Amino acid sequence: MTSKIDFYHAPNSRSGGTLALLEELGVDYNLHLINLKSGEQRQSAYRHINPMGKVPAIRHLDTLITEQPAVFLYLADLFAEKGLAPALGDPLRGPYVRWLVYYGSSFEPAVVDRSSKREPVAPSTSPYGTWDDVYNTVTGQLEKGPYLLGERFTAADVLWGGALHWMALFKIMPETPAVRTYIDRVVTRPAIQRAAAKDVEYAAQQAAA
Amino acid sequence: MTSKIDFYHAPNSRSGGTLALLEELGVDYNLHLINLKSGEQRQSAYRHINPMGKVPAIRHLDTLITEQPAVFLYLADLFAEKGLAPALGDPLRGPYVRWLVYYGSSFEPAVVDRSSKREPVAPSTSPYGTWDDVYNTVTGQLEKGPYLLGERFTAADVLWGGALHWMALFKIMPETPAVRTYIDRVVTRPAIQRAAAKDVEYAAQQAAA
Repeated sequence: MTSKIDFYHAPNSRSGGTLALLEELGVDYNLHLINLKSGEQRQSAYRHINPMGKVPAIRHLDTLITEQPAVFLYLADLFAEKGLAPALGDPLRGPYVRWLVYYGSSFEPAVVDRSSKREPVAPSTSPYGTWDDVYNTVTGQLEKGPYLLGERFTAADVLWGGALHWMALFKIMPETPAVRTYIDRVVTRPAIQRAAAKDVEYAAQQAAA
Repeated sequence: MTSKIDFYHAPNSRSGGTLALLEELGVDYNLHLINLKSGEQRQSAYRHINPMGKVPAIRHLDTLITEQPAVFLYLADLFAEKGLAPALGDPLRGPYVRWLVYYGSSFEPAVVDRSSKREPVAPSTSPYGTWDDVYNTVTGQLEKGPYLLGERFTAADVLWGGALHWMALFKIMPETPAVRTYIDRVVTRPAIQRAAAKDVEYAAQQAAA
């Protein structure tokens, strides 16, 4: 059914989330390495592919898909037989879509402000309210565990587990025991470990190019 | 198939997008008006429903869905027979998901910075890069028209048409002729007009309560 996916990836960047998802899905792809250090993402060849000059991006069926949560929603539905996306009609579908979108539209803006030491704008304007709103909402959800949506592991965990792993490494978000347990549960998965190893290899390929 | 949707809405707010979508879908709902002026969204009764204290939120099948793009993705798929969501497998599915997610994860953060006169953070950290990246990406897409995804009107137009309408009213984003034509094409739709009339009525109900 599916033609091969083109995956635009920069090693050691946000697009590592998509790399991990592709590994969890067991999907083959045409890899296009983008060199962020040389500014390749802002050059016209890549702008022609993604006018926003960002990774990750994928191309499939001659169309461009950008924004990590959109890439996740798309790929997990495309390979529905892998079971990483609750199907339409499944009671988990709503929370699944909610948490993927929330990552991009509330969590990232909050993290950007916090890591850049910017005050959030007024709650009436802010997409996320306050840092505490975001922190308490995320940690509160993970207290329930074992996964973001409860018993079922989904593509949302690939995104959130990886992101929280980086937050913890860079000490951007204070850890709770539940958050630590959750991160460990996700990043020790064989596919996530394989993706991490591939990213090391891709970084070496890029450095040697 | 579907149990009735609970819709948490504040008149004259961002949740007007969801009101417009419900009207386009022709879906009945249990309306819960939230008074933003009195701060009802931050009080415990509503926090119990949405810990982020934001509208829109919907409840369906005993689950909470927040974040406007998630609400759109969910509802348009739930009422797939209305034809506002390209189906899984349709070549427009990827761009459809991309543009809905992009609204929350790139466009809104860019608009918030711009309307608050904040400098964007460094492009390597920013979720959206620069204002020009966002502006050129959106206006470039709308040049193609007539709708965001081309010939087909989708739920993404309900979100974007309404949002750009507000941007234009508040002069946050400079209009191009293509943007103006697009806004007019969307907001003159009968369902969007009906939703606007309902919002006036809901505002009056709330003021009288």
